[in-house]
Amino acid sequence: MTYSFPAELASTAVDIEQALDALLTAPRLATPGMPPERLVAAMRHGSLNGGKRLRPLLVRQAAGVFGVPPAATITAGLAVEMIHCYSLIHDDLPAMDDDDLRRGQPTVHKAYDDATAILAGDALLTHAFGLLAGEATHPDPVVRIRLVAELAAGAGAGGMVGGQMRDIEGETGFLTERAISDMQAMKTGALIRAAVRIGAVLGGADAEALAHLTAYAEAAGRAFQLADDILDVTAAPEILGKPTGKDAGRGKQTIVARIGVEAAQRQLAELIHDALTALLSFDSRAEGLRATGRYFAERER
Amino acid sequence: MTYSFPAELASTAVDIEQALDALLTAPRLATPGMPPERLVAAMRHGSLNGGKRLRPLLVRQAAGVFGVPPAATITAGLAVEMIHCYSLIHDDLPAMDDDDLRRGQPTVHKAYDDATAILAGDALLTHAFGLLAGEATHPDPVVRIRLVAELAAGAGAGGMVGGQMRDIEGETGFLTERAISDMQAMKTGALIRAAVRIGAVLGGADAEALAHLTAYAEAAGRAFQLADDILDVTAAPEILGKPTGKDAGRGKQTIVARIGVEAAQRQLAELIHDALTALLSFDSRAEGLRATGRYFAERER
Repeated sequence: MTYSFPAELASTAVDIEQALDALLTAPRLATPGMPPERLVAAMRHGSLNGGKRLRPLLVRQAAGVFGVPPAATITAGLAVEMIHCYSLIHDDLPAMDDDDLRRGQPTVHKAYDDATAILAGDALLTHAFGLLAGEATHPDPVVRIRLVAELAAGAGAGGMVGGQMRDIEGETGFLTERAISDMQAMKTGALIRAAVRIGAVLGGADAEALAHLTAYAEAAGRAFQLADDILDVTAAPEILGKPTGKDAGRGKQTIVARIGVEAAQRQLAELIHDALTALLSFDSRAEGLRATGRYFAERER
Repeated sequence: MTYSFPAELASTAVDIEQALDALLTAPRLATPGMPPERLVAAMRHGSLNGGKRLRPLLVRQAAGVFGVPPAATITAGLAVEMIHCYSLIHDDLPAMDDDDLRRGQPTVHKAYDDATAILAGDALLTHAFGLLAGEATHPDPVVRIRLVAELAAGAGAGGMVGGQMRDIEGETGFLTERAISDMQAMKTGALIRAAVRIGAVLGGADAEALAHLTAYAEAAGRAFQLADDILDVTAAPEILGKPTGKDAGRGKQTIVARIGVEAAQRQLAELIHDALTALLSFDSRAEGLRATGRYFAERER
């Protein structure tokens, strides 16, 4: 059977949506007490929203390089996705980006209230680690503890949260192209990097393979964010599913604003080239990661 | 040497303050990127505040029942304390309890801003799990992964965060004494329970010992909160270090409001009795836990 990226993307999204739906119920979360319905409902609202589930896809594809079957990557993928979802809930808060809509639906703080959104984010963040600790993630506790370390590093002060802080700080000053790139490498890149490394650890990657996959992830992560910034300027709003020009309107500093669309597109092509080059030592089982790299550059939304 | 509770309390507080101070620096948190100074400063502001460090004390004392030396419990204690500190930062936000002062200092959102406070809380929460994953916590990864599971359960939707949600929901309705007690068992009890169980797991407790220590923790946790509620009504503000009558002024529902101070004091004595009874099978190495139980009932602030 030939590899189909659209089929893998779609099937991962279905798997993750179903697994989240099954997991985010009061009885499943009831240790040591029974979680309030409102909290569970807000956690569901913020995560069962038809996302593309690109991070679980990367976990699956990176593990797939070592022959790990997709089903054995779902729990680890869920943990990464929960971190992503919590970050969106918190980023949308009035104190942060103040967004009322996400994917055409009210954001969690609009559908509930700010306090509930803060707590739903906290609960998803906490539960991501609880999930990694469970045997469903991987039978070997040595592997599971490495996944906890990877996720904490990618999501924490030196990763996603630190990047979000830099982004907010950047709103009140001038960032160089390099500073913007470094901020984005933390804000979106660090969790993408963690997703790929988590897949690699699930697959038992040796140090050399892990280094190649990390190089792939870092280039792909920068490409992903750069493509996002380009789309914000060039895409038709009806295809993107959200208003364009939003970054500029908010004073967000992007590489596109700094060097222009054409130079950004050249940089994007180089990053994809770097990402694919990092995969040269792998066989056809890295086809998924290659396809995702190309998708990051070519996507229309 | 006879056991001294004040000495153990003071020495734990010093150990934890020093360890937090050493840990919460940009270079120590710099993976994969360098965390912004502002974020690190806010994390420090929200945690290096001279707290009593009762949760790390419980980790130390529960592990001590099995002969674990205090120094070997510090990292796990730090993780629990980081969860406690993050919860205070988020609880103090305007969207939650809207507190401007904590221990006489501006709360994190007052000293910085709401966005920074949200992110500093998120980063502490994330880092708690990263810390548990490291070898400094315990040499055996099987033990470390159990600690991750315990902390996630205590801190998550079925624990502390769920309790905070119930507390907020309670402000708009009438809670029975039982509902208040269950809410408090989650809001403050679940993390106290996790601290004791984490110490027990560090000490290699068998199922029976773990059950006894869990029973101790559940009774002690309820006692701790009940004593807090009683102090809010009876204490002199200059001793408590914060205004009294705050709960009633805010419409917070407490057991004291429901059954009165005298009945609450009888209930407190019963809970301490239950906590001490749960420790009957342990030898003098449980003296610390016994002293903490009594302290919960007798403290003046």
